[in-house]
Amino acid sequence: MRRFTTRILHFFSPNKQLVLQLEHLLGYTPGHLPYYQLALMHRSKIEELAYNNERLEFLGDAILGSIVAEYLFKKYPYQSEGYMTELRSKIVRRETLNNVAMRMGLQKLVQYNQNDRGLSRSHIFGNALEALIGAVYLDKGFAKTRSFILKQIIKPYIDIDTLESTDTNYKNRLLSWAQKNSKTVSFDTLDEKIEGSRKIFTIAIVIDGQQLTTGAGYNKKEAGQVAAQKAIEQLHIS
Amino acid sequence: MRRFTTRILHFFSPNKQLVLQLEHLLGYTPGHLPYYQLALMHRSKIEELAYNNERLEFLGDAILGSIVAEYLFKKYPYQSEGYMTELRSKIVRRETLNNVAMRMGLQKLVQYNQNDRGLSRSHIFGNALEALIGAVYLDKGFAKTRSFILKQIIKPYIDIDTLESTDTNYKNRLLSWAQKNSKTVSFDTLDEKIEGSRKIFTIAIVIDGQQLTTGAGYNKKEAGQVAAQKAIEQLHIS
Repeated sequence: MRRFTTRILHFFSPNKQLVLQLEHLLGYTPGHLPYYQLALMHRSKIEELAYNNERLEFLGDAILGSIVAEYLFKKYPYQSEGYMTELRSKIVRRETLNNVAMRMGLQKLVQYNQNDRGLSRSHIFGNALEALIGAVYLDKGFAKTRSFILKQIIKPYIDIDTLESTDTNYKNRLLSWAQKNSKTVSFDTLDEKIEGSRKIFTIAIVIDGQQLTTGAGYNKKEAGQVAAQKAIEQLHIS
Repeated sequence: MRRFTTRILHFFSPNKQLVLQLEHLLGYTPGHLPYYQLALMHRSKIEELAYNNERLEFLGDAILGSIVAEYLFKKYPYQSEGYMTELRSKIVRRETLNNVAMRMGLQKLVQYNQNDRGLSRSHIFGNALEALIGAVYLDKGFAKTRSFILKQIIKPYIDIDTLESTDTNYKNRLLSWAQKNSKTVSFDTLDEKIEGSRKIFTIAIVIDGQQLTTGAGYNKKEAGQVAAQKAIEQLHIS
C-alpha cells in the first residue's frame, strides 16, 4: 500500500524520468528521492560538500564493505580471514566498482562536469555507486541495502571465480611482459619480521637489476602479488 | 517470552557463569552461545581456523566500520568525507579497541595461551572485541549489533572529543620531544600532485638534516600529521 502511494506521488513529480531509471537500477521504487539525487551529484558539478555525493560515498563504502564481508564469511566457511580480506578488496576496489557502475548504466545518471578532463582516472561512477548504496541505506535500512547489493550488484556483475584467480595473474602478467620486452625480473625477499604472533614478509621486484616496487604479506606468495600488482600499475602494463 | 526461555535454558547450562558475564558485557541475554565462545577463542589456544576467532574478527571489523561510519555521518552533518574517514580510523584502530576491550574486562573472558610472550603486542583483546561484534551480528542481526556498539562501546568508552584533538597532537608531541632532546625538526613539502580532481600533498619529516618519514594527505596539515605519527612510532616516543 505504502509502495503504491509512493509510486503515485512519483508519477506526478517532475522527476518521473529519474524515478523510472532508479526503479530499473534498484529493483524497487525509491522513497525519499533527495537521497538519490545527492548520490548522483559529483563534486565537479557542485563543490559544496552538503550538495555533492562524497559524504554518502563514505557511508556507502562502509555498508558495502560489511555486506560483502558477510557474503564471503558465509560463502567460504573454511577460508581464512586473510583469504576473505584479499577477495573482498578485489570486489570493492575502485577499478571493479567503476566497471560495475558503468555496466549498470550509472554514467547516464551521474551529474558531473563533462569538460573536466582530470576526471577520467577518478572512478566517478564507482564512487557514485557507493554513494547510491549510502542513499539506499538511509532510505530503506540495512536489510533492503543488503538485498540490493546481493541481487542487483554481486549476482549480475561480480564474477567471484574470475576475481579469485586474478590472484596469481599479477605475477604471471609481469613475467610475460618481461619476456616480451627482454627484461629480467626477480622477486627478492627483503625482510621477514614477526608482528604479534605472525610473520610478515616483504618482497621486492627487481627489473634489470633495479628495484621497482615492494610488497608485504603474511606469506611470500601474497607479498609477491602485492609487489607485482604495484609494478604492473607503475609500468602501465595492460 | 523467547528471551525468558533462553534465560531458563542458560540457567541449567554448564556455561552459566559465561552467560552471566556475557549478559553484563552485552546488555542482553545471548541466544546461540557457540558464536560467543568462538569469538573468545584466540588462535594461540586453537590454531585450526574453524575453532578460533579470526574469521569472526573479519566479520565484526566490517560491521563495526559501517556502524561507526553511520554514527559519524549523522553526528557530523557538515564535515567532509576526509574528516570522517580520519576520525573513524582513530576509533577503530587496534590501539583504541584494545584499550576499550580491556576496560570492558574482555581479558577475563578471552581464551589464549598466556605463556606466549609474542602476544603482548598483538592486541588480542581488541581483536576479540571485533569478533564479539561478529558474534552479536550472527546471533541477533544488524539492529541489535548497532545498539550494542552505540550503547555498550561508543557511549561509555569512546571519547570522541579527545580522539578528535589527538589529531594535532602527533606534530606537537614530536616538536616537544625535539626540544627536550635538542634536535631540529622540519616539515618539508616533497610533492604536490593531482589525483583525479584532488590534490595530494606529501610531507617529509627531517630531523637534524636527515629525512626520517613521509606522509601523504589531501592537505598539508593532514600529510604532516601522518608523517609525524610515523616518526613518533619509529622513534618510540611515548
